[in-house]
Amino acid sequence: MNTFGNIFRLTTAGESHGPALTGIIDGMPAGVLVDIESIDRFMARRAPGRQPGITSQRKEADHVRILSGVFEGMTLGTPIGFTIDNTDCRPADYEHLRHTFRPSHADYTYTAKYGVRDHRGGGRASARETATRLVAGAFALAALHQLGISVWAFSSQIGNVKINRPLDELDISESIYETSMYCPDAETNRRMESLVRRTHEAGDTVGGIVTCVIQGLPAGIGEPVFGKFQSMLASAIMSINAVKGFDYGMGFDGVSRFGSEMNDPFAIDTNGRITTVTNHSGGIQGGITNGRAVVFRAAFKPIATLMREIRTIDDRGNTVVLPARGRHDVCALPRAVPVVHSMAAIATLDAVLMHRCSHI
Amino acid sequence: MNTFGNIFRLTTAGESHGPALTGIIDGMPAGVLVDIESIDRFMARRAPGRQPGITSQRKEADHVRILSGVFEGMTLGTPIGFTIDNTDCRPADYEHLRHTFRPSHADYTYTAKYGVRDHRGGGRASARETATRLVAGAFALAALHQLGISVWAFSSQIGNVKINRPLDELDISESIYETSMYCPDAETNRRMESLVRRTHEAGDTVGGIVTCVIQGLPAGIGEPVFGKFQSMLASAIMSINAVKGFDYGMGFDGVSRFGSEMNDPFAIDTNGRITTVTNHSGGIQGGITNGRAVVFRAAFKPIATLMREIRTIDDRGNTVVLPARGRHDVCALPRAVPVVHSMAAIATLDAVLMHRCSHI
Amino acid sequence: MNTFGNIFRLTTAGESHGPALTGIIDGMPAGVLVDIESIDRFMARRAPGRQPGITSQRKEADHVRILSGVFEGMTLGTPIGFTIDNTDCRPADYEHLRHTFRPSHADYTYTAKYGVRDHRGGGRASARETATRLVAGAFALAALHQLGISVWAFSSQIGNVKINRPLDELDISESIYETSMYCPDAETNRRMESLVRRTHEAGDTVGGIVTCVIQGLPAGIGEPVFGKFQSMLASAIMSINAVKGFDYGMGFDGVSRFGSEMNDPFAIDTNGRITTVTNHSGGIQGGITNGRAVVFRAAFKPIATLMREIRTIDDRGNTVVLPARGRHDVCALPRAVPVVHSMAAIATLDAVLMHRCSHI
Amino acid sequence: MNTFGNIFRLTTAGESHGPALTGIIDGMPAGVLVDIESIDRFMARRAPGRQPGITSQRKEADHVRILSGVFEGMTLGTPIGFTIDNTDCRPADYEHLRHTFRPSHADYTYTAKYGVRDHRGGGRASARETATRLVAGAFALAALHQLGISVWAFSSQIGNVKINRPLDELDISESIYETSMYCPDAETNRRMESLVRRTHEAGDTVGGIVTCVIQGLPAGIGEPVFGKFQSMLASAIMSINAVKGFDYGMGFDGVSRFGSEMNDPFAIDTNGRITTVTNHSGGIQGGITNGRAVVFRAAFKPIATLMREIRTIDDRGNTVVLPARGRHDVCALPRAVPVVHSMAAIATLDAVLMHRCSHI
Repeated sequence: MNTFGNIFRLTTAGESHGPALTGIIDGMPAGVLVDIESIDRFMARRAPGRQPGITSQRKEADHVRILSGVFEGMTLGTPIGFTIDNTDCRPADYEHLRHTFRPSHADYTYTAKYGVRDHRGGGRASARETATRLVAGAFALAALHQLGISVWAFSSQIGNVKINRPLDELDISESIYETSMYCPDAETNRRMESLVRRTHEAGDTVGGIVTCVIQGLPAGIGEPVFGKFQSMLASAIMSINAVKGFDYGMGFDGVSRFGSEMNDPFAIDTNGRITTVTNHSGGIQGGITNGRAVVFRAAFKPIATLMREIRTIDDRGNTVVLPARGRHDVCALPRAVPVVHSMAAIATLDAVLMHRCSHI
Repeated sequence: MNTFGNIFRLTTAGESHGPALTGIIDGMPAGVLVDIESIDRFMARRAPGRQPGITSQRKEADHVRILSGVFEGMTLGTPIGFTIDNTDCRPADYEHLRHTFRPSHADYTYTAKYGVRDHRGGGRASARETATRLVAGAFALAALHQLGISVWAFSSQIGNVKINRPLDELDISESIYETSMYCPDAETNRRMESLVRRTHEAGDTVGGIVTCVIQGLPAGIGEPVFGKFQSMLASAIMSINAVKGFDYGMGFDGVSRFGSEMNDPFAIDTNGRITTVTNHSGGIQGGITNGRAVVFRAAFKPIATLMREIRTIDDRGNTVVLPARGRHDVCALPRAVPVVHSMAAIATLDAVLMHRCSHI
Repeated sequence: MNTFGNIFRLTTAGESHGPALTGIIDGMPAGVLVDIESIDRFMARRAPGRQPGITSQRKEADHVRILSGVFEGMTLGTPIGFTIDNTDCRPADYEHLRHTFRPSHADYTYTAKYGVRDHRGGGRASARETATRLVAGAFALAALHQLGISVWAFSSQIGNVKINRPLDELDISESIYETSMYCPDAETNRRMESLVRRTHEAGDTVGGIVTCVIQGLPAGIGEPVFGKFQSMLASAIMSINAVKGFDYGMGFDGVSRFGSEMNDPFAIDTNGRITTVTNHSGGIQGGITNGRAVVFRAAFKPIATLMREIRTIDDRGNTVVLPARGRHDVCALPRAVPVVHSMAAIATLDAVLMHRCSHI
Repeated sequence: MNTFGNIFRLTTAGESHGPALTGIIDGMPAGVLVDIESIDRFMARRAPGRQPGITSQRKEADHVRILSGVFEGMTLGTPIGFTIDNTDCRPADYEHLRHTFRPSHADYTYTAKYGVRDHRGGGRASARETATRLVAGAFALAALHQLGISVWAFSSQIGNVKINRPLDELDISESIYETSMYCPDAETNRRMESLVRRTHEAGDTVGGIVTCVIQGLPAGIGEPVFGKFQSMLASAIMSINAVKGFDYGMGFDGVSRFGSEMNDPFAIDTNGRITTVTNHSGGIQGGITNGRAVVFRAAFKPIATLMREIRTIDDRGNTVVLPARGRHDVCALPRAVPVVHSMAAIATLDAVLMHRCSHI
């Protein structure tokens, strides 16, 4: 099940330390202008090195090679094949993990499922796989841009440091990626940095929340009852490594509220169009967009690999002690922000295209 | 998009006030013993009348009529078609809603999407649609039972009343359905009842959380990277009316934790098999089950229809005042519990069957 | 795998002698005007009684009950659930087949696959299942009609009696269904009737060919490389009971031809639009329609049940002699014509809708 | 729609004269032993140069680069990404076709569909795309081999030269690929060679038939009613360039036969197992295999590009004369044989895996 989507579909392959990652984007509409260099720039946003005080071990100079589907700067409507080489592989570094199951990693579950696994750097279970999603995300964003739809994601919480200002006071735009933690609130960004640095010094890791905002969507997008827009988004987002939760609108914060606080009264906007006064619903009602911004959150757990010695077991049940290793990420954020951004764009374009078939 | 699943697939149809709901269960394995009466009993758990002090307006004597796929008490492997008649329809009661958009309902979004809608009782957007899911859920549960896998769901929170005891102190079993609020903790059940009664008296509604526990799953279930078990579950659960969030394991509560608190060390159980000491991961690592219980939560918003007069607009933008109506549910729970239960069972059986193709 | 299609999807269920057949049509565009009575009239074209000199045993007064998706004479965009009752079931008539495998039927293969089967009248393998396809076909035809696209099918060969006139000399229209054998050439129709009568008298059965013509399709329909229009059509048609072959354009007749006889030169028609002088390609090039009529053929084998005593075996390998039974159809045609007609319409509407996603 | 299959799925991308073809094989079972060199050898069977008296213009030294999914000689269960470089591209050679529509090619239909096309060498519509299918075919064949299932394909007819001996007198094995025309009958092979040479000398092209035989399949494979084995095979085969028809068993030859000649009586074989005396059904009844060999045919039209001057039009409707070009293939066979072979293997493995979910 390495394909996501219905009409706009991403299929991916690749282990962390194999020759390359690869992907095929199918259902990309013809006639979208694309700039390959801007895809590399988008991919650079997932590059390591953003964790204050540290740098992840691996220097991925990720460069995407587009093999098909684009001709003279425009999409052809045919599938877009691409590869991203794994340039900094040191398989020998992982030989000690060949028979070892690291706690809270997928070493054991992959072995249980397939009877065999590529032990090098997490193999298929590595978050490196998500690099392919940025390529598809970049294409989806280009198409959505031509349709007047924007998608942005940002770090809204790391550990217990969170943005306390309302969404409409934030600058939700390209400028997010100019900050160190991909957080649009400068003060929160600074406090996040500080928390990550302290966590690193303690040899620990920490979780966080990425918030995503989709604007410019017309009312009518989403396919009830099993293709509800929130269902498609949740499926997309929950497929990202380390994501443990998804909610939209008031989400989990709404469960303890009363209905009288939560309804979104209708109103007529200055253009005479129907809108809602508030947006507790997060832009979706009955699985279909209502024209307001779609707002959702993704909860990331702390990264499992600590910078401490780890006691665990091997595949014969013997105890193994793994030495501390020092250059892993402290937090999945901010590198996960463009991944959420991309998966949201992929699911959104898919839903937008599907909607074209709703009427005769 | 009215089909859910890959191998085990449920397709549903039906408006709230049309002649009947209907569904087709495809991919049901042959050789499962089924008892049609027990399906009706399971469906009775979603029946109205459980809200303290009130009764929902509609008396649904839901009875499922199985049309195919079962022969002499056993599944045939062929698709199971079924209908559930809508017996208590009073279309005239809804004439005043023909041109009106109720706030936080799907009236407006369905009209925006399709240009036309069945205005009677919410039409396709009504939670009545979920009755079909219980039929498929009952079949999935019968199959899972033969495989030694159990699925249970319960009310873990209503408003701000929540269970404060750890999961392993609760009686997660059939007995849940013997309580008034489908809550396995007696004291919490009583407080939930009380909150619902007070909310009803205030003419208001309230949200809640359903927790689901899947036990007996072997390690190895789930299909990375886009068919991760949590992704399939999230897609299933987010398709349920009024659900605004999904998380599993430590979920949203884990984002502010440190990795050192969250890892699940491996251990060898008394049978010499690999297990984990804790289960912060919620039974899934890298999208694949690890043999521990899978635990997830679904967040429900407060029901949108209040027992108060509502000011809203019609399809020409004119203001409309809807009179207060008195017999709606105050909370989606506990009736939503068997819906979550069913969707979890459906997604689980699908994942269990898919796993059979993992090896040569 | 009881679902056909990508965007416009038919899911069916039902055994020949269970309570009812059922189906769900998903992805039906909103805004199509439908007349339920005309669906029953379309279904009457598959009714038995058209075989000269004989009448099939079963009197199916097929009446479709639409349960959802249509409101006040118009499609809603929501799924269309329907049932067709099995009114003339005599399960006791089939008790002698409970353990017997009839030659060239699916009795043995269903048992081999599922370990269990409904032995009554062929169960799920009966051609009665195709009745559901006519319902979906009628809806698809209504949608295609609004788009200016027509689909027709007819008997072009029974045994070795075939139409010898070119396609453009035939009246390919509603009038086909006014003939006894659904053959648009009066002389051939008469000879087909005569052959069927003689075959019946000999206690034998005979095969035939249904030809289908799709007109009014714009250039551009079909989704390379695995959703080529011919691939979608072949998948649809080969799923029909007793069909053993599919070809389009020159098809099997073209294999012994030279390229110089077969190319279709381009020309400009009287409206200044691009067309082709000939149509050896059958309206499709590279999997995509070129604006000419799409023409394909479906080959039907002789019906397996003869009006003669049959020697066969039971499920323990013992020899069994089945008595001659006298009122089975002699030929799958003409009753298969509306089934081909329907499946072609279903696949065509699916392809037409998919094409809407080809451009930004 | 560049993905084929349900469980075992091939997704492909690539234009004829872009940088590379690429593909991803998903659902490949773990634990299959694979030998990458043997894949290259299999691909060499599709290489040009087999047409007597001529050589196709392009020298494709096709070499597949496996990027993932295989580790230390064994499949991992994860997706297999691969690329095949396009090494002999001369885009400038095609500049004269940028605005021209060649008759019976897909130049016009791709332009009609997408509004844009890669005019170089047919782009996505080129038969070069089928090279990717051989890679997936080789993996499928390796898996099927471990399950005791064999698949073979061969040239059974070119023009009007056909094999006249019964199937069971032919050596259906690896040795087919040792002949010049991939024909297991030496005398027919010689006559095919001679016909191709004469056709080449006449500057013409000719069609043919590839027959495929699948042996070792247990009874029970295939998923009624829309996943009938013949339906899956037809969909696979009709997606191949230049294929105009598909039939199985007696196929089109059976339409003029009587039922009394066509039934396949059951018998008990020497191992006490149920079999059939004859195999007119082609190994499938009711969409499910019966344990006999599955036999089907694919009809190929003559190649459209003749070695003669061609009069056609450009995208403004002006007449264009294309000069004769001398080194195109004269017949799609024998190079198409391994393509049919591969697609049959892909569909068969998919059906075999799906069947594992039929029982509880």
